[in-house]
Amino acid sequence: MIETIFRHRSVRSYKSDPVDERLLERILEAGVRASNTGNMQVYSIVVTTDPAIRQELSPCHFGQPMVTGAPVVLTFCVDVRRFSLWCRQRGAEPGYDNFVWFLSGAIDAMLAAQNICLAAESEGLGVCFLGTTIYNADRIAEVLRLPEGVLPVTTVTLGWPEEMPPLTDRLPLEGVVHRERYEDYTPETIDRIWAEREASPETAELLRANGLPNLARIFTERRYTAEDNRLFSRKYFNMLKKQGFFNQ
Amino acid sequence: MIETIFRHRSVRSYKSDPVDERLLERILEAGVRASNTGNMQVYSIVVTTDPAIRQELSPCHFGQPMVTGAPVVLTFCVDVRRFSLWCRQRGAEPGYDNFVWFLSGAIDAMLAAQNICLAAESEGLGVCFLGTTIYNADRIAEVLRLPEGVLPVTTVTLGWPEEMPPLTDRLPLEGVVHRERYEDYTPETIDRIWAEREASPETAELLRANGLPNLARIFTERRYTAEDNRLFSRKYFNMLKKQGFFNQ
Repeated sequence: MIETIFRHRSVRSYKSDPVDERLLERILEAGVRASNTGNMQVYSIVVTTDPAIRQELSPCHFGQPMVTGAPVVLTFCVDVRRFSLWCRQRGAEPGYDNFVWFLSGAIDAMLAAQNICLAAESEGLGVCFLGTTIYNADRIAEVLRLPEGVLPVTTVTLGWPEEMPPLTDRLPLEGVVHRERYEDYTPETIDRIWAEREASPETAELLRANGLPNLARIFTERRYTAEDNRLFSRKYFNMLKKQGFFNQ
Repeated sequence: MIETIFRHRSVRSYKSDPVDERLLERILEAGVRASNTGNMQVYSIVVTTDPAIRQELSPCHFGQPMVTGAPVVLTFCVDVRRFSLWCRQRGAEPGYDNFVWFLSGAIDAMLAAQNICLAAESEGLGVCFLGTTIYNADRIAEVLRLPEGVLPVTTVTLGWPEEMPPLTDRLPLEGVVHRERYEDYTPETIDRIWAEREASPETAELLRANGLPNLARIFTERRYTAEDNRLFSRKYFNMLKKQGFFNQ
């Protein structure tokens, strides 16, 4: 188990072979074993294999090749709809159309997603999370016909790996873990945490290719600009209200 | 690996034995191997073992016995602070104080949390997620001294199990999984999805103890009332703004 976790990498290139239906079901069953809020399971998983629908999803993920290249695309959604329909059908008045239930559903969905990824990887499959899901949730909702009470939070592509990329580096553990209470960062700890990554040949190559003097500016000026971040924030928050998660 | 996932249960009763520091480090290392947004790792993990601080955390989780009973309490936080401090120290202007970066950090934190839980369980440890984290994020932030740019999303208690509870039931897979696109629920599918749980002896006992005619009303009238949901929604959203995740 723990070895599967340490071997994880994001697979962006897949063989065209399909994933056997029984294997897929076992992996999905592993997903729903995850802890969830009050055992209410306020999430849904949309499993898309149809190439035509994956083609429709592709622009929602800025054309990243995994969406059309992987045989299976899993869209994980917060879903208070199913639970609320059940309540009404039983004469109970649901009150789950608000922010904490969006959060609870997002937490549930992410735990199920990670279970599914690890179960898949333990069977030799490759996976990749698509963060673009929160940038274009409105278009994804259109393609997948998500009704009120349902909102996508992440997407995972799944298939047999064409190639296994190298492991990605991480910040040293001391950079992410705090003991007892939060210990704020000093300029010295900030320097130490990023030292290895900043000194790497990969970073040197990135700086050369981008004509920028340091790695931080590649993030703020090329990858995730303040303007984009604010635009996508407003878009997702509007979508959150539209899908009925802000009646509070 | 997949067997660990299928054996998962929430452990609420722990032995007083501590968790060996080297084992804890290996489990935390498994956490940071999880996928994360842009490899920016916009989350932090606060590891609390000090009994006095766990005692302070206890009321934040409504006195649930796991907080003082488990030797280790892990609080998972969205954290754009470390990354933003690094940017500023390199002359780059960060723009991560907005809603999509709260969401990205929450996603990163939850994937790391699930890795940690599964790594721990594969070593025989027991874990329990505390959903109360999002109800009292303000008080948790005080106890753990979380500065601006940091906000808790979940808590996991960790330790050697005193007892292993039975597996919890789940809705049938067809209740949670949609094929190709979202297929909306009919009254018949709603009835079918909940049929087994509603007919169980556990439900019969709950109805008797609560004096209510069905399970749905136990959720809406006893466990998660609309009034509480709205109160906690407003509280968390205010905290989200206070910690600097809504400048958009």
